[in-house]
Amino acid sequence: MIYLDNAATTLPKSKSVISAMSYAMKNCGNSGRSGHKFALNSAETVYNCRKKLARLFNTRPELVIFTSSATEALNIAIKGTNRVGGVTLVSSMEHNSVMRPVNSLRKKGETVMRQFLVDIKRDSVTCENFASVARSATNIVVTHASNVCGKILPIECLKSVAPNDSVFILDAAQTAGHIPIDIVELGVDIICVPAHKGLCGPMGVGALIINPYSDILIEPLIEGGTGTNSKIFEMPEEYPEKLESGTVNISGIAGLSAALDELSFNGSEYRLYEYLLKGLHDAVDITLHGAPDENISRGFVPVVLFNKNNLDCETVAAILSENGVAVRAGFHCAPNAHKTIGSYEIGGVRVSLSKYNTRRDIERFLKILGEIK
Amino acid sequence: MIYLDNAATTLPKSKSVISAMSYAMKNCGNSGRSGHKFALNSAETVYNCRKKLARLFNTRPELVIFTSSATEALNIAIKGTNRVGGVTLVSSMEHNSVMRPVNSLRKKGETVMRQFLVDIKRDSVTCENFASVARSATNIVVTHASNVCGKILPIECLKSVAPNDSVFILDAAQTAGHIPIDIVELGVDIICVPAHKGLCGPMGVGALIINPYSDILIEPLIEGGTGTNSKIFEMPEEYPEKLESGTVNISGIAGLSAALDELSFNGSEYRLYEYLLKGLHDAVDITLHGAPDENISRGFVPVVLFNKNNLDCETVAAILSENGVAVRAGFHCAPNAHKTIGSYEIGGVRVSLSKYNTRRDIERFLKILGEIK
Repeated sequence: MIYLDNAATTLPKSKSVISAMSYAMKNCGNSGRSGHKFALNSAETVYNCRKKLARLFNTRPELVIFTSSATEALNIAIKGTNRVGGVTLVSSMEHNSVMRPVNSLRKKGETVMRQFLVDIKRDSVTCENFASVARSATNIVVTHASNVCGKILPIECLKSVAPNDSVFILDAAQTAGHIPIDIVELGVDIICVPAHKGLCGPMGVGALIINPYSDILIEPLIEGGTGTNSKIFEMPEEYPEKLESGTVNISGIAGLSAALDELSFNGSEYRLYEYLLKGLHDAVDITLHGAPDENISRGFVPVVLFNKNNLDCETVAAILSENGVAVRAGFHCAPNAHKTIGSYEIGGVRVSLSKYNTRRDIERFLKILGEIK
Repeated sequence: MIYLDNAATTLPKSKSVISAMSYAMKNCGNSGRSGHKFALNSAETVYNCRKKLARLFNTRPELVIFTSSATEALNIAIKGTNRVGGVTLVSSMEHNSVMRPVNSLRKKGETVMRQFLVDIKRDSVTCENFASVARSATNIVVTHASNVCGKILPIECLKSVAPNDSVFILDAAQTAGHIPIDIVELGVDIICVPAHKGLCGPMGVGALIINPYSDILIEPLIEGGTGTNSKIFEMPEEYPEKLESGTVNISGIAGLSAALDELSFNGSEYRLYEYLLKGLHDAVDITLHGAPDENISRGFVPVVLFNKNNLDCETVAAILSENGVAVRAGFHCAPNAHKTIGSYEIGGVRVSLSKYNTRRDIERFLKILGEIK
């Protein structure tokens, strides 16, 4: 099987990730709940991973909040910083993990939702579009890179024209692990990430990363036991406890921790991405949506959307699957992104890479795709 | 190490649980997101576990909602069924996973919180206490069994006097896997369970179980991608999708599924519990809190709280830990339960069993405890 669905979840997971999870299942109790060896193993596992994420994103360990997914992190970020009577500004490329919680606040009358159009080819136009509506924004939620076509948004530029007192939340579901991200440099308040995509960890873990220079207050979405301040019926004021209640996913965090040890930004998947782009650009019956003009990977993560002329995207994906190639067709939980790049009516076939792909994967995929009639 | 902290999380986890997780890490893509083999493996893994839980609790598979913990399930249940202007009734034995979300609604003015006193010795008194305040209750949230002393609450009796149109939520964190639970027989609307306690699965998974005869509506707490209805910015109306957004914890669900195959209610931990109770009753310097009078396990799950005269509970737990016995001392995230059983000032040492404990574990524990001076 040639696995090219890494934007859904990366596969394979490395041996060290899987064995770290097994080790945790054998040796970890409930973190922060007791003082015996198994509970301490667990607390240490969690803290080590917290430290690694803090280093990766350039914040302090206590400002790394473990969640069960990027979706949960985004819900905490969006709802926990919402100001009733304010305006939430989103891009035209957002995933339903942003659109649905923002829309839920809008329906309750707790925010007004506005949107700015992303221009795939010209970041300056994206920035102008943003600037023209940003003035009234109290909350800004933007994807770092599109899960549909890989386009990286010009976050520094957006941040530079965002109102000073607005909250800026970055959905880094598709960038974390693919490109270095420094929360201080970007200047955003919160970054939400999944463990199981570019970071190559397990499903069932995500994180909410808070900028150490940000003074935003985030209210909990989920309250419960924290193993601290047991006698108080309010959540502790300190991070991470304030936003992290109930038992965390110890084996998942152990797996992520092992995955972080193997993380490098050596550009291997970018070389494959350029090769893939060239192959698709050269094919006569392929239409690319939202891709760079040439085989230039700058400004994109390694995700490509295409259609094969006259064939339904689901049919193409099914034929690819029959021939041993895993991709994802349809709308990818991000209809507005498809609108932005012109594929809203027909959807598309998405190919997404990870560091575990090889040149041979791409060669075989292009060959099999070429043979579909 | 003698592990007697199973009410925090059960240890060990069985080999088949760990290998099911490893298998999922190697073979599962993102469930419900694509049509290729790895995604289908994943969807099948999730559905199989859903079916097993449905059978265990006597509901339909689509009424089993996977969450990341019992705490998340309780937050969804409590907040997703709350009626502004209503009254939420809780018992005096609740964990912070109930107290904190209910208190958060109360602080926002979205509910009034009332409490009824549990009588450890006399269920009929508990029922009378409940009945005397239940009339105004719109929402009832009750623990099935105390995480502090193991007392099982008389749920059928409470349910029989609860207002017909009230929502009844059961926190089965300490009962699931220890005693059979039939949601139809109990008549409650929602049961919340963790995978990692009596069910002996991994941490990072929980479930919200809906009664097939209940007509309650549960609003989502977390919105996001579901892999379905992608073009709509509202959550699908159908369960489980309505309450299950973002990527689920596939390896965790695979582990739980394997754990469910090994579940039996053969009473082994109850025989040990009676032996433990007898040993503690017989010891001259031990005070039990909220335990049955005699070595009778009926009406309890295998959890015991005690203090050793003149010694601080944390000190006793630390000495036990040094001598290879894992227990949990303190307040166990449930201060009102300690108030109810008279240990609010001093806390207590909690011993909690699982089916993996042996008679030898209890013997050695009692011996080591006896030697502490």
